[in-house]
Amino acid sequence: MQMKLLQDRILKDGQVKEGNILKVDSFLNHQIDIDLLGRIGEEFSRQFAGSGVNKILTIEASGIAIACATAVCFHCPILFAKKTKSLNIAGDVYTSKVESFTHKTVNDIIVSKSFLGPEDRILIIDDFLANGKAILGLSDLVRQAGATLIGAGVVIEKGFQGGGDRIRSMGIDLCSLAIVESMDPVRGIVFRKD
Amino acid sequence: MQMKLLQDRILKDGQVKEGNILKVDSFLNHQIDIDLLGRIGEEFSRQFAGSGVNKILTIEASGIAIACATAVCFHCPILFAKKTKSLNIAGDVYTSKVESFTHKTVNDIIVSKSFLGPEDRILIIDDFLANGKAILGLSDLVRQAGATLIGAGVVIEKGFQGGGDRIRSMGIDLCSLAIVESMDPVRGIVFRKD
Repeated sequence: MQMKLLQDRILKDGQVKEGNILKVDSFLNHQIDIDLLGRIGEEFSRQFAGSGVNKILTIEASGIAIACATAVCFHCPILFAKKTKSLNIAGDVYTSKVESFTHKTVNDIIVSKSFLGPEDRILIIDDFLANGKAILGLSDLVRQAGATLIGAGVVIEKGFQGGGDRIRSMGIDLCSLAIVESMDPVRGIVFRKD
Repeated sequence: MQMKLLQDRILKDGQVKEGNILKVDSFLNHQIDIDLLGRIGEEFSRQFAGSGVNKILTIEASGIAIACATAVCFHCPILFAKKTKSLNIAGDVYTSKVESFTHKTVNDIIVSKSFLGPEDRILIIDDFLANGKAILGLSDLVRQAGATLIGAGVVIEKGFQGGGDRIRSMGIDLCSLAIVESMDPVRGIVFRKD
């Protein structure tokens, strides 16, 4: 179920740029509207209500604010994976690799083994889903730790890039609050029908 | 005025490592305790009450959560500066340089000119203050934009490194919720007297 308030804000303040870039940096991932952020957290908590989420996992940097707003509703800790290019990673971390669509780079992502384990019921949160590599990298960390993956919540899914549907086909409960079916600097943005 | 609840948590869960590193990644900058985070936001809002703050400025990544918790109390937007190593930066951003104490690297930090201007009354927020370079870089962005710097709030100041006192001597209203006067892997942590 998508979020009308968010879709309206994307139509009002989002900017479509060449190269399949959707800029929402006036309210989501550079400047952040704190009211909208709170509503987003509430919406994720509704969509995953009753699932026993006890930790929110996200990735630095722009996922952190959304994870915070969601964690407030679940009243649980946040854990954010760190990006690193260092090849020598100490043995006390879980690590995976994530290719960034925006930056065309590959990062190692790490979380400390101290903070992710079999007792954890994890909701993954991120701002954008394009090719889905960040969600897959984070779910790989969850798998390595033997934790339970409850699902993943993203604010904006670029549906036309197919990453979200691939993740759904793997059986991951993915909730995207706005799914962009098509976008174009001239013709604008069209959302997927629920 | 320091925050007893935070000091107690640092004494309980903080780890002093060689090289003047204080690890608080179980509750502040990797895993985040959402209750403590809320209390930190409330404390900053008390300390800067009545100052007309209308925007919180921080720097990715670990400042973002603290900025969110503070922005909820001030009911204002967050703006987080991005770190970049790119030398060619477009003309529509303010930029400054920050040397990281932890990582021994120099980053350009940028904010979009669209989101920082003369009408803004800025509270800078960050998790750590060591040499103070991040606060100085952020306050340089505020100056470039012609905005008003209300002050700066940091969660943990490493007082013995002197950065905080240099910032105070420049006339910046700096509020640190815990000021570590000395620390040592064996002898532990001593906080500055208020």
